[in-house]
Amino acid sequence: MAESQTTCARPDPLAEFLACAVRLADRALDQALPPDSEHPRRLHAAMRYSVFAGGKRLRPALVLAACRACGGSDDACLPAMAAVELLHTYTLIHDDLPAMDDDDLRRGRPTCHRAFDEATAILAGDALQAQAFLSVVVLGTPAVQVLGLAASSRGVVGGQQDDLDSENQAGMPPGERAAALERIHRAKTAALIRASCVLGGISAGAPAPFLAALGAYGEASGLAFQIADDVLDATASSQALGKTAGKDAAQGKCTYVAVHGLDAARAESHRQLELSLQALAPLAPHVETLAALARFMVDRDH
Amino acid sequence: MAESQTTCARPDPLAEFLACAVRLADRALDQALPPDSEHPRRLHAAMRYSVFAGGKRLRPALVLAACRACGGSDDACLPAMAAVELLHTYTLIHDDLPAMDDDDLRRGRPTCHRAFDEATAILAGDALQAQAFLSVVVLGTPAVQVLGLAASSRGVVGGQQDDLDSENQAGMPPGERAAALERIHRAKTAALIRASCVLGGISAGAPAPFLAALGAYGEASGLAFQIADDVLDATASSQALGKTAGKDAAQGKCTYVAVHGLDAARAESHRQLELSLQALAPLAPHVETLAALARFMVDRDH
Repeated sequence: MAESQTTCARPDPLAEFLACAVRLADRALDQALPPDSEHPRRLHAAMRYSVFAGGKRLRPALVLAACRACGGSDDACLPAMAAVELLHTYTLIHDDLPAMDDDDLRRGRPTCHRAFDEATAILAGDALQAQAFLSVVVLGTPAVQVLGLAASSRGVVGGQQDDLDSENQAGMPPGERAAALERIHRAKTAALIRASCVLGGISAGAPAPFLAALGAYGEASGLAFQIADDVLDATASSQALGKTAGKDAAQGKCTYVAVHGLDAARAESHRQLELSLQALAPLAPHVETLAALARFMVDRDH
Repeated sequence: MAESQTTCARPDPLAEFLACAVRLADRALDQALPPDSEHPRRLHAAMRYSVFAGGKRLRPALVLAACRACGGSDDACLPAMAAVELLHTYTLIHDDLPAMDDDDLRRGRPTCHRAFDEATAILAGDALQAQAFLSVVVLGTPAVQVLGLAASSRGVVGGQQDDLDSENQAGMPPGERAAALERIHRAKTAALIRASCVLGGISAGAPAPFLAALGAYGEASGLAFQIADDVLDATASSQALGKTAGKDAAQGKCTYVAVHGLDAARAESHRQLELSLQALAPLAPHVETLAALARFMVDRDH
């Protein structure tokens, strides 16, 4: 009996860590956001609707793991955990708008502009971006700079513009298309994942070499994650994804699969994963969770 | 001859100050923005199109006047001058969108989404907000907090939501309507004007009592300015305004004129102007330019 129980309850350290990250992130986000009883209620309700939509909290988990790897306390990184998720949520709300990707579903629920209206969704995204900066500012000016760069036209916003501009550009010369693809992936996805890892280090008061290692880890694992996402969009079902599958191909988007094919995408995703693991060397020996997180970002089914 | 020349060239100190503020602001904004030769070019072109659209640079002028009033150098406040105008421009771009005020003209030129497209306009606004925080961060964390609060759902974004929610609410009880109006004016307009004045003081390294006086001055002059704007929308021509006149009434917006009438609006605008001048007392004797700016914000024709 006892033996069988032990086998059943075999602990999965990563699952436990992720559950802990969700709990901490949700608490930090709740404290960072005005209550939806506060005026203007519709705006605050829309902000909370999108923030508390059952996300995996991957970016806050990276903040937490990076902070712990540098010897920081969980409390120290709560502002950064909230900030990266607020920023990420704002980009999702705006990306889903009719003028952009025109998505009706996000994480299996109506997107913000479908649940509320377009004006409220634009404003909810705008306010979430401001709130992200208000969250991170307690960590000092370097933290604001890291978040600002990831949020700028050289980060997520530039990546989204590139992504939209890349649609239906199948006639572009292959070399240009591959270069555009890498730019999109670095700016749209890797920039904020990189920033999350660096902010975790800043939260812990880590020295510059640690921050550089975390940045390199975040950049590579972010690329691996986005390429794995392209693979999932091409192979998984809408039900598994919680959003419309196969949309990238339908919209003629510049994905790794479209440019290089499925096999090359799987190979590159694992190559970037290896690079991210190598980048952790200066931080050893406290990197088990970061390593497990990078593997999880590649080998997932949704 | 000499006498006549002297009479003709009679200097207008405020006009000279405003021209100087435009020059300094334009230089600071040019340095704060990525060149439009940098990728993604369409995004950077849209950001620059809207930032360099011939605005009056009122908010940067307030930063400059507040900084000088506290004994700061012009160089010290360039980052704040750029930041408030970047933030202001982003709110104009988003307010003009089809889902919001649906305006085709801004400062006599096509709005950003008409000159480019809706997705690019949304992203240009998003990137300008991030760039505003990247500009102001060199002034330290209190400056980031001041800008963040003005940019948040408790500032300009909340004010815009309230403004949209107020449309066609003529049936609302008069007391509620007057309260909603004051909330809109304080959040949508006064918050960023207040922040501009405080940021000017922070740039100069001013002590807390000076920052408080600048905040009170900015709040009252911001309210005076918005009420004067309501009056202009009801009385001036589209040509004089450089945007569609009479739109507030056509959209059933909650303006001071709609709620209290034209005479009461003119009286309240001047009452707030007097409050703003009184608030400058702790800063005397270096307040001539701030006082002249407050009068200019009320007694203008466009």
